[in-house]
Amino acid sequence: MQGKTLGELANHVGGRVHGNADLVIVSAGTLDKAGPSDITFFSNRKYEPQLKTTSAGAVILAVQADIATSQLIVEDPYYAFMQIVVALYGHREHKKIGVSPAANIAATAVLGQNCQVHPFVTISDEARVGDNCVFYPGVFIGPGVQIGNDCLFYPNAVVYDDCRIGNRVILQANTTVGEDGFGFSTHKGVHHKIPQVGRVVLEDDVEIGAGCGIERGTLDDTVIGTGAKIGDMVTIGHGTKIGPHCLLVPQVGVAGSVTLGHHCVLGGQVGVVGHIKIGNLVNIGAQAGVIGNIPDGSTIVGSPAIEAGNARRAYSLIAELPEMRKAIRRLQRQLAERDSDKVTNE
Amino acid sequence: MQGKTLGELANHVGGRVHGNADLVIVSAGTLDKAGPSDITFFSNRKYEPQLKTTSAGAVILAVQADIATSQLIVEDPYYAFMQIVVALYGHREHKKIGVSPAANIAATAVLGQNCQVHPFVTISDEARVGDNCVFYPGVFIGPGVQIGNDCLFYPNAVVYDDCRIGNRVILQANTTVGEDGFGFSTHKGVHHKIPQVGRVVLEDDVEIGAGCGIERGTLDDTVIGTGAKIGDMVTIGHGTKIGPHCLLVPQVGVAGSVTLGHHCVLGGQVGVVGHIKIGNLVNIGAQAGVIGNIPDGSTIVGSPAIEAGNARRAYSLIAELPEMRKAIRRLQRQLAERDSDKVTNE
Amino acid sequence: MQGKTLGELANHVGGRVHGNADLVIVSAGTLDKAGPSDITFFSNRKYEPQLKTTSAGAVILAVQADIATSQLIVEDPYYAFMQIVVALYGHREHKKIGVSPAANIAATAVLGQNCQVHPFVTISDEARVGDNCVFYPGVFIGPGVQIGNDCLFYPNAVVYDDCRIGNRVILQANTTVGEDGFGFSTHKGVHHKIPQVGRVVLEDDVEIGAGCGIERGTLDDTVIGTGAKIGDMVTIGHGTKIGPHCLLVPQVGVAGSVTLGHHCVLGGQVGVVGHIKIGNLVNIGAQAGVIGNIPDGSTIVGSPAIEAGNARRAYSLIAELPEMRKAIRRLQRQLAERDSDKVTNE
Repeated sequence: MQGKTLGELANHVGGRVHGNADLVIVSAGTLDKAGPSDITFFSNRKYEPQLKTTSAGAVILAVQADIATSQLIVEDPYYAFMQIVVALYGHREHKKIGVSPAANIAATAVLGQNCQVHPFVTISDEARVGDNCVFYPGVFIGPGVQIGNDCLFYPNAVVYDDCRIGNRVILQANTTVGEDGFGFSTHKGVHHKIPQVGRVVLEDDVEIGAGCGIERGTLDDTVIGTGAKIGDMVTIGHGTKIGPHCLLVPQVGVAGSVTLGHHCVLGGQVGVVGHIKIGNLVNIGAQAGVIGNIPDGSTIVGSPAIEAGNARRAYSLIAELPEMRKAIRRLQRQLAERDSDKVTNE
Repeated sequence: MQGKTLGELANHVGGRVHGNADLVIVSAGTLDKAGPSDITFFSNRKYEPQLKTTSAGAVILAVQADIATSQLIVEDPYYAFMQIVVALYGHREHKKIGVSPAANIAATAVLGQNCQVHPFVTISDEARVGDNCVFYPGVFIGPGVQIGNDCLFYPNAVVYDDCRIGNRVILQANTTVGEDGFGFSTHKGVHHKIPQVGRVVLEDDVEIGAGCGIERGTLDDTVIGTGAKIGDMVTIGHGTKIGPHCLLVPQVGVAGSVTLGHHCVLGGQVGVVGHIKIGNLVNIGAQAGVIGNIPDGSTIVGSPAIEAGNARRAYSLIAELPEMRKAIRRLQRQLAERDSDKVTNE
Repeated sequence: MQGKTLGELANHVGGRVHGNADLVIVSAGTLDKAGPSDITFFSNRKYEPQLKTTSAGAVILAVQADIATSQLIVEDPYYAFMQIVVALYGHREHKKIGVSPAANIAATAVLGQNCQVHPFVTISDEARVGDNCVFYPGVFIGPGVQIGNDCLFYPNAVVYDDCRIGNRVILQANTTVGEDGFGFSTHKGVHHKIPQVGRVVLEDDVEIGAGCGIERGTLDDTVIGTGAKIGDMVTIGHGTKIGPHCLLVPQVGVAGSVTLGHHCVLGGQVGVVGHIKIGNLVNIGAQAGVIGNIPDGSTIVGSPAIEAGNARRAYSLIAELPEMRKAIRRLQRQLAERDSDKVTNE
């Protein structure tokens, strides 16, 4: 890793240095672990105590702080931090191995330029792959799949038949795209499998975490919109549409035939029932259970999920239920005592 | 895809046409997306508005509706829809490739007739596989496993040693059957692994979704009963018995030594603690937490799960807890004021 | 399987026989399934009725019981049971196959003595593997990974670049270690990927279940401490530190930058938000949602999680909310009636 001066980094991110612009920054670290040749960042006020005591060479922040450490002041510190981590470390590099003879590529599959196809990869009949794709060992591309340019599939990622994958899509390891939707017709107590003839469409710049399952549609496609990022072990039901630029944190489950707008954020372990519509810019707190339509711009939490302002108070009051019940019983007793007093007095 | 007339389809499913029996149906679609050569279905009353405005050529329903669209009237529209999707599209076809020389098959393994074994599949010592099975790349069949006929294992599905798999069992991609149960004996602060010497038994017609983990038993087998269907990312604990024809929706977790009866339905993200007994025909709502035995025929929701009639009201009242507490405090104040009035008046 | 006398087993575990020390024990079983040549154990009082009626040849327990069955009395029955299961069955044996020519091993990778490397395994550049490791088919070891001795990776387990794995680490099938953390910087509505330059460190004697995802750190490593055992489908966020000897039951999700102490137990489906500190010896009930720091030795349940003593009562009172609201309304009515009575009487 070769260093850059704090001044160079400030230039790179369009920020201003307060302190030593000639300081050479070699690497990046967290507030509490960073050393004198590290740059760190401050954007979560929870870490204010660590800001005062950090040993970092420099810190990226939005507002100049009263500390001795050199500072790089920018509008969006976390974004600048991202740019600097890229500048210092780059993204993961992928070995140029070309197309391994130990991969299993159908004669009718079409591969673009400059792909890296590792051993034990399968590319099935009639699949079409764009340029500069990297497929690690164990990747399976089903028949008729179409994939854009610059995609990156980690080991054992699986894409079922006929799915459509855009450009710059990343699949982390052991993740599955396009498995059969959970669709059965129950007749006289027996569950009959409904052929799932829809596909999965992953638009450009989608990333899917490790161990996910994105069900193909029964009839309509399941769609993950441009730029959406999905964490580990998330499952998306058949026919659901996830809007552009949504963030789905690990272990979220969205049932089938749901429509999500753009820029929604779903916290960890959120569950969403089927056949509902969630608007744009909706925030859903971790572990929430969403059981009805949600308007644009809402923030909801809890299971069942309700508007956050009330919900945080309401759910925290569960802890006081024993006290509340006691209070009610005391009131009942007091009223009953008055009644008997009154009777006695009369 | 070759079309069929609405009359032919009605014959096929034992239904009655209202409208144009000669209409040629080529494909199937949802109420809002179907076009004039599509058939659609109506079984969820939520979609009544879409029924009035559908552009579908024909619609399958249970009761004749006052709409211009041609109708196919049957007792069980969703079942008829399933039959028609099969008639129009068929189930996924699997290429006849025979046994790939790039598969790794132990000399002592036995394979039935007409199996399709893809490259990079492993079939271990003493494994026995029936006829007409399809194993996609990356499938691993452990030592001593026994598998019936007509099974279908998608890429990277793994079956550990000695498990028993019935006929027509489907494993979706990246799913695991028979991994070690989560069984440790903690002694002086150290967790000692208990050999998990039970197996997993998957009976006939079981389907397991993508990314699941079905633990093998510690001593007794883990069993998934005939016809049970399990969604993505479900985990079943060691020694648990899932009864026949249960439906376990994605992300369900059932701990060890649980017994489930037949025809239970567990909603998404349901959790079930270990060592309990759940009866037959039990319905458990999404995200419920089940912590005790449940009698036959119950419908329960919530965490902790309680009987649904009360639960839906009870859990929705959490939102009113702040109001309820205010009301209690007001009552306390009012009573206290009376007391001081009374004292003053006396 | 060759049998041992009850006396021999008692010697082996340092226990005392009450009954027939010459009884030959061949296998182990549960209280209700064990037969006359089986040994069983009793440690969960829930199974007291089965203890009275067991057909087992012998039972391991802590306190001599008034039953006809031969007994092996030890301080820690479950630990003795574990030792006896190991004595009778041993742990799973792994075929000695050496290094398969059908594995793909980089020229610059270093392998220790006596490793079993199955076909379709990948060991990447500069990876270093200790002695006696077993890698099943589909295992992927990324560039620069370092692995100790006696590790056991089941089919399709994936370890990303540069991770550090100790000795005797077990990865169950289809599990992922070191995938990119869910780290994005959102700028003008677009989520930019932050290179995740930290690693995952799995210390000695860690076991990870099937289908898990352990994210690599953004800057700091993600660490799973010595002897920690993790169930199926668990996800651990970037930079989180799981202390030694923790137990994380299936489907737990821990977000990033969390610190867990030693010997914590997290029940099934527990969720933990990011950037918090959980002390030592903390017990967290199934499905709990942990949203703040937790002191040493706490037992917490519920979502949001609160101290267990109060919580179990509090959460069970949700079922009584409809009754409580009715009671409040009745009190309000009664008070209002008095007021009007008073007015009338005056």
